[in-house]
This record gives sequence, C-alpha cells and structure tokens, in this order.
Amino acid sequence: MTSATQNSRYTSEKVSTFSGLKCKECGAEYEAKAMHVCEFCFGPLEVAYDYEAIAAKVTRESIQAGPNSIWRYRDFLPVETDNYIDVGTGMTPLIKASRLARRLGLKNLYIKNDAVNMPTLSFKDRVVSVALSRARELGFSTVACASTGNLANSTAAIAAHAGLDCCVFIPSDLEAGKVLGTVIYAPKVFAVHGNYDQVNRLCSEVANTHGWGFVNINLRPYYSEGSKTLGYEVIEQLGWQLPDHIVAPLASGSLFTKIYKGFQEFVKVGLVEGKDVRFSGAQAEGCSPIASAFRDGRDFVTPVKPKTIAKSIAIGNPADGIYAIDIARKTNGNIESVTDAEIIEGMKLLAETEGIFTETAGGTTIAVLKKLVEAGKIDPDETTVAYITGNGLKTQEAIQGYVGEPLQIEPKLNSFERALERSHTLERLEWQPVSV
Amino acid sequence: MTSATQNSRYTSEKVSTFSGLKCKECGAEYEAKAMHVCEFCFGPLEVAYDYEAIAAKVTRESIQAGPNSIWRYRDFLPVETDNYIDVGTGMTPLIKASRLARRLGLKNLYIKNDAVNMPTLSFKDRVVSVALSRARELGFSTVACASTGNLANSTAAIAAHAGLDCCVFIPSDLEAGKVLGTVIYAPKVFAVHGNYDQVNRLCSEVANTHGWGFVNINLRPYYSEGSKTLGYEVIEQLGWQLPDHIVAPLASGSLFTKIYKGFQEFVKVGLVEGKDVRFSGAQAEGCSPIASAFRDGRDFVTPVKPKTIAKSIAIGNPADGIYAIDIARKTNGNIESVTDAEIIEGMKLLAETEGIFTETAGGTTIAVLKKLVEAGKIDPDETTVAYITGNGLKTQEAIQGYVGEPLQIEPKLNSFERALERSHTLERLEWQPVSV
Repeated sequence: MTSATQNSRYTSEKVSTFSGLKCKECGAEYEAKAMHVCEFCFGPLEVAYDYEAIAAKVTRESIQAGPNSIWRYRDFLPVETDNYIDVGTGMTPLIKASRLARRLGLKNLYIKNDAVNMPTLSFKDRVVSVALSRARELGFSTVACASTGNLANSTAAIAAHAGLDCCVFIPSDLEAGKVLGTVIYAPKVFAVHGNYDQVNRLCSEVANTHGWGFVNINLRPYYSEGSKTLGYEVIEQLGWQLPDHIVAPLASGSLFTKIYKGFQEFVKVGLVEGKDVRFSGAQAEGCSPIASAFRDGRDFVTPVKPKTIAKSIAIGNPADGIYAIDIARKTNGNIESVTDAEIIEGMKLLAETEGIFTETAGGTTIAVLKKLVEAGKIDPDETTVAYITGNGLKTQEAIQGYVGEPLQIEPKLNSFERALERSHTLERLEWQPVSV
Repeated sequence: MTSATQNSRYTSEKVSTFSGLKCKECGAEYEAKAMHVCEFCFGPLEVAYDYEAIAAKVTRESIQAGPNSIWRYRDFLPVETDNYIDVGTGMTPLIKASRLARRLGLKNLYIKNDAVNMPTLSFKDRVVSVALSRARELGFSTVACASTGNLANSTAAIAAHAGLDCCVFIPSDLEAGKVLGTVIYAPKVFAVHGNYDQVNRLCSEVANTHGWGFVNINLRPYYSEGSKTLGYEVIEQLGWQLPDHIVAPLASGSLFTKIYKGFQEFVKVGLVEGKDVRFSGAQAEGCSPIASAFRDGRDFVTPVKPKTIAKSIAIGNPADGIYAIDIARKTNGNIESVTDAEIIEGMKLLAETEGIFTETAGGTTIAVLKKLVEAGKIDPDETTVAYITGNGLKTQEAIQGYVGEPLQIEPKLNSFERALERSHTLERLEWQPVSV
C-alpha cells in the first residue's frame, strides 16, 4: 500500500456500482447527469446503487487492502471509472478522547478529527474529491461552488491539483484565513455582498446560464455522497462496529443525513452488525433554524438570518434540515444549539484536553456534546463519536482575545524567573469565564 | 488496521532496540538519559541502535502491518516501551506532482506533504511525538521547547493530549497564527524579545536550572530521531525504493541529516537496495549561513542575524549546519538560497499547480528546487522528492497582499456578469511579478 497518488493515466473501463439518480420524495428515476432537482415534484435527487452487486463484491478485507483514503470505499461512491482524484482525503484519526471524556463525565468518547483532513483541513475535502471526480467524468472543464469558506478552500485546491478551471462564490464577510486559503490556489473568487443563502441563490442562477459544474448545486447528488465516508471510517476504525451515539454539526443538514446513510449501507451489505445509533445535531444559537424546529416539534424549518461566529455552519435556509430532524427524532437523538460564548469555550476545552485546534463549527459540536451530557441526554456508558469538521487556523479572529497571551520577557534568566513567578499569581485571573 | 489511538494503558515490558547515546565526534558512550552534549569533547550525542537485532526482527511486511503513523517504524525510534504517544502523526501523502513537474521541466517529481501532518500541520509533530514519548519514559512531568513556531504548536498540542505540563519559548515577533496555534492549548508561553538563537541560549540555561524536559535541548538526541521517518516513509511510498535526489529546507540542519540517516538505516538492515541519493538543501537568503559556507567551500558556519519572512527556518547559528554541508558535498548535491520574493512565488507556484498551501519554509524549498532545475543541477529524469514541512495557514501575513483579491459583487446575476467580464480584462494586471 502506498499513499503516492498517481492518477495521471485515464482508465476508460467503467466499473460503476450506481445505477442513476432517484428522487428522495417521489422516487422518479433519472440518468446520472448533472442535475439535482426532480422535474416532477421538485424533491432532491439522490444517487441510487445496486447494493446486491456491492454486497457480492466488497468485503472488509477488500476495503482494508484499498488506498488509505476515502477511495477505499470506492464502490459506495458515485464514480464510473477508476480515474478518481485521490489527494489523500479521508482516513483521518478517530481519537479515543480519554481526557475530554473524564472532564465531561463520559466513559467511551471518540473524536473523529477532520480538522486534519487532506488537503484543506475540513470534511469538505471528502465531498469535493467525489464531486470533482464526477465532474471530470461528466466532461466539465470549469467547476464552481457557493461556500461559507471550507468548501471554497477545498474546491479551489483540488481543482488546482486536477487542472480544472475554478470559480468560487463566498459571502464577503468571511474570515481572512478562509479567503486567503482560497485565493492562494488562484481560482476566480467572487465575494458576494450578502449572506450564504443569497450566495447560494445567485449560484443557482449562474449554474443555469453558464455551463459550469457547481459542486453543491447541479453536482450536489454526487457531492453529498462523499460525506458517507465519515460513517464508513468510524465503523472501520471502531473495529467494524457501530457507535451508540453520534454528535455532528448541522449546516444544511446534509452531512448528518449522509453519515446516517453510510451506517445503513454498511449494515445493508453485511459489513457490520446492525444496531440502534442515536443521532444528535449541533447548531449555533445565532443560526439555529433546525434546532428551533426540533425543539418546537415542527415538521418544517423556518428560515432565519444568521448572526454567529460559527460562519461555516451559518446556513439560514437549510436544504436538508427536515431530513436531519426526521433522523434525530426516529433515532431518539436530539438537536441543540449553543451561544457564541459556549462555542469558544468548546474550542478551548477540546484544545486543552485533546490537543485538537478546531474551528467554530467544532466548538459548536463540543459545546452541544457538553450540554447534552449535562442534561442527561447522553449516557456515560454510550460509545459516543463527536465529529470535528474543520481546523481552527481558519477562524483565528473568532478566538483572538479569548485565549491567554504569551508572557513577554527579555532573553535573560532573571527576566524569565520573574515572569514565571508572576504567572503563578496571574493564573487565576486568566481563567475568568468568557463573555462574548 | 485502525487509526484509533488508544494509548491509555501503560505497558511495562521493555522492547527497545537502542543501546544508549554515543558522541557523534569522539564516539564516547552514555546511558540513554536526558543529555545531549558529550562530556569529553562537547560533540552532539546521537542514539545508538542494535542494527543486527533490528534486521532480525523487522521486515517490509511487519512495517506495513503496523499503525498508519510514524510508529510503524517503532524499532528505529528511541522508545523503550510500547507506551508511545500516537496521535496519527506521519504517513503524510507522497504526491506525484505532475503539473508542477511539467512547469519546471522535470519528469519524476514528488512532493512529500507534511503541510498536512497530524496534529499540528508540520513535520515537527514527528520529532515531538518521539520526544514526549521518551520524556514520559524518563519521568518528566513538565516538557518545554525553544521554537520558531511550528515546534511550539506541536509541543503544546501533543503535551495537552498526553496530559503533560508544558512551557514554550518563542521569539516575540512570531506570526499571529503560530502564537494562537500555541496558546489555544493553554501551555505557559514566554515571548522572548530576541531572535531564535537568543531564545535557544536562554532555554539552555532554564534546562539547567529547572528539571524540565526540553524537547530540542536535553531531549534532543531522541527528538531529532523522529525526522528519520521522513526518510522511511518516502522509501515505502515509492514502493520500497530510494529516490535519486531530495530537496529539503535547512534550519538547524538536523532534518536534512536525519533523512540521510533514515535512508542509510533502511539499506543497512536490508529493507531497500542501496544506491546514490543526492541531497540538496534550501535556505532563505535572509538567513543562509549554511548556503554561504557551502558556496564558499568553507568547513565552518559563520553565524548570521536572520532577516527573512521564512521565520520557521531562520536559525542564524545552526547546530547541525556543518553536518548538512558534509552530506550535500559527499552526495554531489547542492545548498542554495532564495530571496523573500522568490519564496512567495514558490508558495504560489505550489498552490496553483498542486493545490498545496505551504508556509514560507515550503516556498523556500520550491523556489530552490526551481533554481536548481534552471541551473541544470537537477536532471529532468531524476526521481526527485521535495519535502514540504509546514502549512500556509500559519504564515498568512507573509503572503497577504501578494495574492489576488476576491471580486466584490452584489447578489445579483448582472452584477456577477459584469465582474466576470471585468476579470478577463484584469487578468493580465493581476499577474505582475511580485516585488517584496
């Protein structure tokens, strides 16, 4: 096995295990083209697979013999040829979080750490690797996206590696690290004066007028399948077992539903024993349309205007919100929201106990995890997996001012000794509660 | 195989393959304690191994059956027990860089990408994982380091994960991302008003007066061995072959010498066929004491005061500089330096062709690679590996102002269309040569 990615030669042999697209609402079937909405009922389209063919072909051993990336699950992904783009995406660590678990009062807590996903340090590398592989198969030479930041980074980077032209649309108030982490790859970047939902609407229009492959619009059915690998990997890394409870952030709700789909598929093809898994979702209070609907027992999501430091999950009109609520309800899970101050405390808690520096979305997940444990909604004995989806270096402004400052000293031993003594005195003052 | 790191139970069984420390200059032998300088000749101490025992025990298959981290090479690392700290460090991708190769006129170029190393996105996670594992074996409860930034991030994060107290010393003018990426883990951080060499001298004094384990001072012999894994992994990822030529950045020179040692060891124990490998080193012109000595044919390195944007490799008085020169000379390699403007161009070139966002040190390596190719000092047919050692999100200020800006638009289709047209006109203007 090698991590070297040598994808330069195109193979023409078709080896797909998927049959086409299917409407999630009315079941209407379509060819596997660049489209995402049912022409009859306007429901979202999903990729349909031939699970019998997969079951006959795939074993635990065949997966383990595959590449050390999401492409070890290639038969569960919507690509037609073996000419996929493999930049080492996926197979991020599943960390047994003993120190965080002790702090929270849990016994079996794991962190699935996509803050170190490759190449751009968020789970978006999974969906983009799949979307661009499929875009290339469908003949697109220009790819594009509407993004809250992480998706922009990932689309620009992987397009650069694959030699595809790239256009990226972002809200103009994005964090500096996410902007720089996009323009560095030299795509065309459009900063839209509006929130993500406005960016998204504009991109739907652009997708209709230009012949571009928008990863999260007309390529969305393929794109979203990439998130299933966050389910597969956890099963494999737990020694081919399902966890008891998962906690994941909710933006559009897609990630959440796809982890669920990933778990179900592995049961369906006999790779893992089935059991009940509880699904709990995390939102920032400043953009919590899904949590509100869940709390109120509603069957519809009322759009909101986002106002939170957790910009990467600030989607006011979440496309898959209602499906996420459905999963949380039927698995006996929960959907909770936390304040910006709690999000910062969540980021610090994860860093101090586990050495993982996550962005605001990850802080949201940890803060909700804590809230659920305190409310007795996660049992201490449950094997619980918290999904960390992005890296803290991208949202530095969110945490600046809420962490300790270095002690300034001269390059002399006595200056150091004085500062060390002072720090013992200061220590209590530094750990005041945060207020945002 | 699983990435789950479950290192909570201590095993007491000793399984070490190393016999102690040995002076690199006079050969005097010492017990494997926390010391780094020979008491007789003041030469640097290195770890000595029982290579016959290793050869009898280790095979390609046994390595491949190990964890997907540096600990698959555990028998070549100076730890006594199996109670090492595994946070998924190592086994970063070796990318076949076809697009960059084409741009430079090379045929077989690979990028070893430690910009996505775990947990803190630089090669320092390798040396720190080893140093803190050994620190724990030696009974230290407080660990420390003198750092130009990446080492601070890594020591603070891995100490947090392992529950060790941590003190970090940095120059006070460090990049914001490197400071925040340290304080987030809540170690004690001392910002020293001076350059790295002054920080380092202060730390030597502190190491003598406090009973702390400084990873790159009194634990340096163990620490530096971690870099050998950058040699092992390239061999394994090339399909158990040595490359023809490597290009790596030079700070203290330690990384360079340890890649060399790693290659030699794998030949010595029969894991790979021996052949000549050329070693070329990269420095920033603003801190190039090793390149200067190499150019002048000197056998000594004259210390300099650093002044470059490549702060992570700005060591004016490099401890292993002379050993690096020796290796470059005897392998028919080169040591070159590049300007800050060339470093920025190197960062952009790597991002645009391969989708890899590296920090200034990586820009230095790519710029030197380009310079060597243009000077005919790398043959187009050589299998060449360039080592990228850190992530661009940590040195954002170095590149701000030298990359394109997003195009500002309103959330309306006609606003987008106007901007798109304008961008075609602007394109030529945006790609002016950089001047720093």
